Amino acid sequence: MQAKYVPSAEIENRISRLQNQLIEAKIDAALIIYKMDLFYFSGTAQNASLFVPAEGKPLLMVVRDIDRARKESPLPEVAPLDSVLGIPDLVQEQYGRIPHRIGLELDVVPVRDYLRYQRIFPKAKIVDSAGIIKKLRMIKSFYEVAQMKRAGEIGKIVYEKGRDILREGMSEIEFGGWLELEAKKLEHEGLLRVRSLNYEAYTWHVLSGPSGSIVSQAESPMGGAGLSPAFPVGAGTRKIQAHEPVLVDFGICYNGYIVDQTRIYCIGDLPEKYVKAYEASCKIEELVLDGARPGASAAAIFEKTVQYAKELGYDESYLGIPGRKTTFVAHGVGLEINEIPFIAKGQNVFLEDHTTIAIEPKMVFSGEGAVGIENTVLITDNGVEKLTTCSEEILQI
Amino acid sequence: MQAKYVPSAEIENRISRLQNQLIEAKIDAALIIYKMDLFYFSGTAQNASLFVPAEGKPLLMVVRDIDRARKESPLPEVAPLDSVLGIPDLVQEQYGRIPHRIGLELDVVPVRDYLRYQRIFPKAKIVDSAGIIKKLRMIKSFYEVAQMKRAGEIGKIVYEKGRDILREGMSEIEFGGWLELEAKKLEHEGLLRVRSLNYEAYTWHVLSGPSGSIVSQAESPMGGAGLSPAFPVGAGTRKIQAHEPVLVDFGICYNGYIVDQTRIYCIGDLPEKYVKAYEASCKIEELVLDGARPGASAAAIFEKTVQYAKELGYDESYLGIPGRKTTFVAHGVGLEINEIPFIAKGQNVFLEDHTTIAIEPKMVFSGEGAVGIENTVLITDNGVEKLTTCSEEILQI
Repeated sequence: MQAKYVPSAEIENRISRLQNQLIEAKIDAALIIYKMDLFYFSGTAQNASLFVPAEGKPLLMVVRDIDRARKESPLPEVAPLDSVLGIPDLVQEQYGRIPHRIGLELDVVPVRDYLRYQRIFPKAKIVDSAGIIKKLRMIKSFYEVAQMKRAGEIGKIVYEKGRDILREGMSEIEFGGWLELEAKKLEHEGLLRVRSLNYEAYTWHVLSGPSGSIVSQAESPMGGAGLSPAFPVGAGTRKIQAHEPVLVDFGICYNGYIVDQTRIYCIGDLPEKYVKAYEASCKIEELVLDGARPGASAAAIFEKTVQYAKELGYDESYLGIPGRKTTFVAHGVGLEINEIPFIAKGQNVFLEDHTTIAIEPKMVFSGEGAVGIENTVLITDNGVEKLTTCSEEILQI
Repeated sequence: MQAKYVPSAEIENRISRLQNQLIEAKIDAALIIYKMDLFYFSGTAQNASLFVPAEGKPLLMVVRDIDRARKESPLPEVAPLDSVLGIPDLVQEQYGRIPHRIGLELDVVPVRDYLRYQRIFPKAKIVDSAGIIKKLRMIKSFYEVAQMKRAGEIGKIVYEKGRDILREGMSEIEFGGWLELEAKKLEHEGLLRVRSLNYEAYTWHVLSGPSGSIVSQAESPMGGAGLSPAFPVGAGTRKIQAHEPVLVDFGICYNGYIVDQTRIYCIGDLPEKYVKAYEASCKIEELVLDGARPGASAAAIFEKTVQYAKELGYDESYLGIPGRKTTFVAHGVGLEINEIPFIAKGQNVFLEDHTTIAIEPKMVFSGEGAVGIENTVLITDNGVEKLTTCSEEILQI
């Protein structure tokens, strides 16, 4: 476990970058209460709040468990906290006064909590610090990339094991369960975190044959049947057949960091139609890999993929069935599965050095099935590196 | 899948109960946007918002996927929605005007979304409808109890299978993965929903020997090592030994509904100390079962258990190690794992007919291990019924 602690230099660097941004945005202090932001800036995911003044020392205030937080976080100043009500006194002591403008993650903090913070800081103006934090978290350090590489290695082993496991007549959900078991043995952490009220991520996205063209709630080319209207996404009870594509979109989380990837299994030969569509998918991925350079426009890359899919003859199936297409081909990934940047329609942003994205050009044939490739890659000034390293052949059984 | 649709009479009844509460609270309409509330009142968990006026017909507004929402929801009025911005027009058309007081789930809705609703309903007052909804959801129908019973049956099979799987030297996380696989084969839906910003639930809570006394973020007698500071709860990489308690707290979700339960495995004989503590745990459970009647005070039951634990000689170990004890012995459960009511310190509420709670009196020995029983039960005027039916013997291997 020792090896999994976030290094002190990482935390210092992250805090210092946050402080620069706070100064620039004229925010006196950020109060970090959202778990994955807390983990990013403190190294612990215990029940705690982190006070980061634009200038001065941060203070980690811990409800439970303080001994563990002290071990996990390299931050020098850690204080026990009974409840949110105790925050102003601790802040006053640390900072010498109550900040005027306090940043809070307003994209995720519920209204009720926000009102409580307003009550305990009646004279302060609470502003949204989520944008700043998301941009900082977008840029990945070498340490973070190393965690993601390990997640990628786990994925490589798990997908390979899948070939020994998948048999005709096995249900999608059972196959998903087996893959999860193999991943857990290698310390996959099970949960894929999402920054959203209603969107849920999960690892058992196993879609066989026609399941691949079932649309659902998520902004994804394929939703899957799921197990019930209460959980209407991903693997269902359908029995997997021979000679049909089995699309497995399986996120792995190692030490908090996620990689996202998709591969296609098939029992026996995969019909030519799907093989060709899979090849087209890989070609579109190549196009994104070629274009994904710091400074490149996300919207422009997206439009190029749409154009290319058309040229390749996949206008109808690219990114979903007609009328239900998604409008992104890549999403940021790190501690969460839906980080920035998105390579998507109308995204007028420019890619940056040391960002990590999952590229997933997928093809869906209405009522028949889906195929596609997905890799998580690191974008740098020196080129693009794949962090998901499992074989890109169709995984035939 | 057909059999898993929520019956029309269920939805009608839930909407009608909500409307009564809205009238009583002088709220003109509720806008349901939180996924599990949406599923409860509409029968679908697609990406949608549900408008429920205090008087008049509800309208389900669906972003994605509308065909699926129409199939899953028995609500007669379903309209396509492009984005939140389209809601006022649809509401105006359905309701004939814009409501003055609109209820929103302010315990979970993020500030940013709230501000967006304020902008699209500039003249309306947005009030908190979460309390009303949580109270309605607390009372379980026969249909809901039937789903939970099925989840309980799955649990029975899974725990029994666990005896064939657990071997000396297996890691906690691997054992957790195996139990999940077995549960998934039986249509366990994998995710345990929680109504909270930062609290995460998961099924792989497998704690062996000293892991059982590791405290973590969660308000739980035992946290476990987890796999890293990023996910510091539940099963870790520790290898399970003979003659130590292996506490497995495993929630099962079937068709959206969760049951929570805990059993103890042991490879070989469990030392007398733990056997006796487990028996004391079961006795305290009996005390709660005897007291859990509609009309009973939750706080009074809790205090009785503390007193009884003392009498039995488990003052120190009951509900956690000294200084880290939790202050509840039971929590509500249904679509989410942290529903009301809580049988907890200072909870001045009275239990009601047809509520479902998970009772978990646990004993923790510092640095050594933890044991305890947990069952999900239905409280009715006619008595208490266990929904988790697996053997309560220590599961010896």
